[in-house]
Amino acid sequence: MSNFSRRTPEGEDRERLICGDCGFVAYENPKIVVGSVVVEEGRILLCRRAIEPRRGFWTLPAGYMELGETTEEGARREAWEEACARLELDGILAIYSIARIGQVQIIYRAHMAEPGIAAGPESLDVRFFAWEDIPWDDIAFPSVHWALKAWAAGLPTIAGNPADDPRGVAGL
Amino acid sequence: MSNFSRRTPEGEDRERLICGDCGFVAYENPKIVVGSVVVEEGRILLCRRAIEPRRGFWTLPAGYMELGETTEEGARREAWEEACARLELDGILAIYSIARIGQVQIIYRAHMAEPGIAAGPESLDVRFFAWEDIPWDDIAFPSVHWALKAWAAGLPTIAGNPADDPRGVAGL
Repeated sequence: MSNFSRRTPEGEDRERLICGDCGFVAYENPKIVVGSVVVEEGRILLCRRAIEPRRGFWTLPAGYMELGETTEEGARREAWEEACARLELDGILAIYSIARIGQVQIIYRAHMAEPGIAAGPESLDVRFFAWEDIPWDDIAFPSVHWALKAWAAGLPTIAGNPADDPRGVAGL
Repeated sequence: MSNFSRRTPEGEDRERLICGDCGFVAYENPKIVVGSVVVEEGRILLCRRAIEPRRGFWTLPAGYMELGETTEEGARREAWEEACARLELDGILAIYSIARIGQVQIIYRAHMAEPGIAAGPESLDVRFFAWEDIPWDDIAFPSVHWALKAWAAGLPTIAGNPADDPRGVAGL
């Protein structure tokens, strides 16, 4: 269908995706994922994914930030869409770069603004887990492990990528 | 030239920019700006912009993150391109959402990894300023003010948008 190819636009120093029909330059930028570690009475909210990738595995409420919202608004929207959860955010927990897939994850600490969770259309199940009950072998992505560990470490400032994975090779 | 219009793709809940010729969906996502407050012997590195917007005004070394790099790599690359400065980063200073223009700014603390600065092609001039010599009336963007104030406040954790501008209305 489409007629896009990679060329270097005049005055630029790297290749971009350009439509051969109309000349549209589709700039490909890193995408922002916003999410939260939501804690209520020491237990952590996880969502079991109803969609690929990693359908059936557990993840934090998180997703792609949209145009026109702030990172905080995006994190709250995702928790609402995936877990019908109304959040209050308590500051940034971590920022992760997953360079291989062009993703930057901004993860907040959060607690419930009001009680009540339910699976949204992208979740099979949503639940609060005590730390020792977290289904560690069925976590969807390495960065969920990173964020849970960063939360458990109680770092006073935000965390970046783990020291042994500065480019987010294992982060998808 | 191009034949793009706004329609809602099947299975989605909001309008996207779609090419009427080839069906290409140009997802428009927030863009990430990475930059640094670079401090050397108490003085702060600023760049005088050689390009629009705000040509002739002073800004932090910062720019759009590219695909395939981490936020840290992007911040170092921008300082190299704009000020021929080799940085070592000292952690995240602040994250700002400028919702109106779909921008998220991730600002690092940094110092020089080796001596030497020079104006790159996008800068008319680059200089270290003592705090009292900063050209406050000729700063390019409000978020540069925010970041300089966040640095001066010495916050132990990162800062978000200022309390009186949570959506980044004044942030361009």
